[in-house]
Amino acid sequence: MCETCGCGDTTKVSVEMHEHLLADNDRAAAHNREHFEAAGVTAINVMGSPGSGKTALLEATAARLRERRRLVAISGDLETDRDARRLERAGIQSVSITTGSACHLDARMVHRALHETPWKQADYLFIENVGNLVCPAIYDLGEAARVVVLSITEGEDKPLKYPIIFRRADAVVVTKCDLLAALPEYELASLDAAIARVMPRPAVIHVSARTGAGLDAWLDWLESLRTTASATPHAPARAAR
Amino acid sequence: MCETCGCGDTTKVSVEMHEHLLADNDRAAAHNREHFEAAGVTAINVMGSPGSGKTALLEATAARLRERRRLVAISGDLETDRDARRLERAGIQSVSITTGSACHLDARMVHRALHETPWKQADYLFIENVGNLVCPAIYDLGEAARVVVLSITEGEDKPLKYPIIFRRADAVVVTKCDLLAALPEYELASLDAAIARVMPRPAVIHVSARTGAGLDAWLDWLESLRTTASATPHAPARAAR
Repeated sequence: MCETCGCGDTTKVSVEMHEHLLADNDRAAAHNREHFEAAGVTAINVMGSPGSGKTALLEATAARLRERRRLVAISGDLETDRDARRLERAGIQSVSITTGSACHLDARMVHRALHETPWKQADYLFIENVGNLVCPAIYDLGEAARVVVLSITEGEDKPLKYPIIFRRADAVVVTKCDLLAALPEYELASLDAAIARVMPRPAVIHVSARTGAGLDAWLDWLESLRTTASATPHAPARAAR
Repeated sequence: MCETCGCGDTTKVSVEMHEHLLADNDRAAAHNREHFEAAGVTAINVMGSPGSGKTALLEATAARLRERRRLVAISGDLETDRDARRLERAGIQSVSITTGSACHLDARMVHRALHETPWKQADYLFIENVGNLVCPAIYDLGEAARVVVLSITEGEDKPLKYPIIFRRADAVVVTKCDLLAALPEYELASLDAAIARVMPRPAVIHVSARTGAGLDAWLDWLESLRTTASATPHAPARAAR
C-alpha cells in the first residue's frame, strides 16, 4: 500500500521474458561469432552515447587504414542512414540498420544486415551501435571486441554512473580531446580514474578524430586484435555478466 | 531460412508484454499527474543523453529561481547519487533513484521516490531522467511538461536520428552554446532546422549554463507552465503517441 496516497503499488517486472530474450540473443550471437571467426573477420561492437563521436572515429580510422585493410561497417540508428552514408564516403562499405524505436542492436538484426554486406571479404567489420550508453551493453552481437566511445564533453563521471557498459568493454576510446583547451575545468585524470574503477582491465585511448592525435594508438590496438585473434579467441560476452 | 548460412532465423518480439507494461505505466502516470495537479506542483521530465548537461541546467536554474520558487528534484542514474548531491548543493532538495540496469525512469519509480521528498511543497518538481535519448521517450511519468536537453557537442543531426523523444517534447534546451567558438564547423541553424522537422510545435531555447546566456528565456518558459497550467492542463503523453 502506498503511503503517499493509499493506492495499491504493485510492480510486476517480466524478468522471465527478459531472460528468454537474452538467451535467444546469445544463441544468435554465438552463431554470428562462429561465422566471423571462420571467415577471419574481426568484428568490433562500437558503442557510446549519441554524438560521442563513433562515426567520426570510424571515418578517421578509414582514412588511415583503408589502404591496407578491408573495412566493412553496419551502422544502427532509430531513423536515417546518415551514418552509413558518411562511412561510405570515407571508404567503408556500409549498410544501415534503422531500428525504429529499438534502443540497441541485437544479434539477429546484425545477422540479417550481413546479407546486404560483403562482410566475408572484410578484415574489420565495425558494428556501430545505436547511440546509447545503457542498453547496448547487455546484447552480445558476436563481436570479437567491444569498444566504448566516450567524448570528453560528456563529463568525467560517466563511467561511475553508467558502469555496466564500461565493465564489459575491451577498450574505451576517449574522443574530442582537441576540445580540452576549451574546457579548462575538465580533468582527464579524473576520467581515467573513473574508468579504472569500473573496468576490470582498463584500456583507454585518448584521441581527436579532428586533429588525428592518438589515432596511432587506436590503430595499434585494432591490429593487436588480429595478431592475437587465433591465439586467444575472445570469450563470449555473456560469460562476463 | 537464412540465406547466408542456412540457419533458421525466427525472431519473436514480445509486443504483447511491452504493451502491457506501457499500459501499466500509463495508469501509474495518470495517478502521479492527479496528485501533482491537485497539489499545484509543476512536474517536469528532463531527458537527454548522458552528459548533455541536464544537471548543469538545473544547477543554473536553481541559482536564479530558488529565491522565489520552491524547487524539488528526483534524479535517476544507473548508479551513484552524484547528480542528486550536486542538486542539493545548488539548493534543490533532491532524492536519487538508482535504477541498476534500467535505462529509463517509469511512473512507479517516481511514485516511490515521492515518499522521500517534500514534493507537495514544491512549485517545480524536476524529474531528471536517466541519460538516454531513446528509452525515456515512451514512459509517461505524470509530468506537466517534457524537456529534451541536447548539447551542441552531440552534433546537428540528432533530432533526425532519434526523432521519437523530440516529437513528444514540449521544449528542447540546446546546451553548451559557449562552446560554439571552439566548434567553427558547427551550424546551429542546421540543428534548429532538424528540430523543426521532427517536433510538431518547435520550442527551442539556446543556453549556456556556464555563462548564463539564454537562461532568461528558459526561466520565462518555465514560468509560462505555471501561468497556463490551470487553463490548459497538459494532455497525458500517451495520447500523443
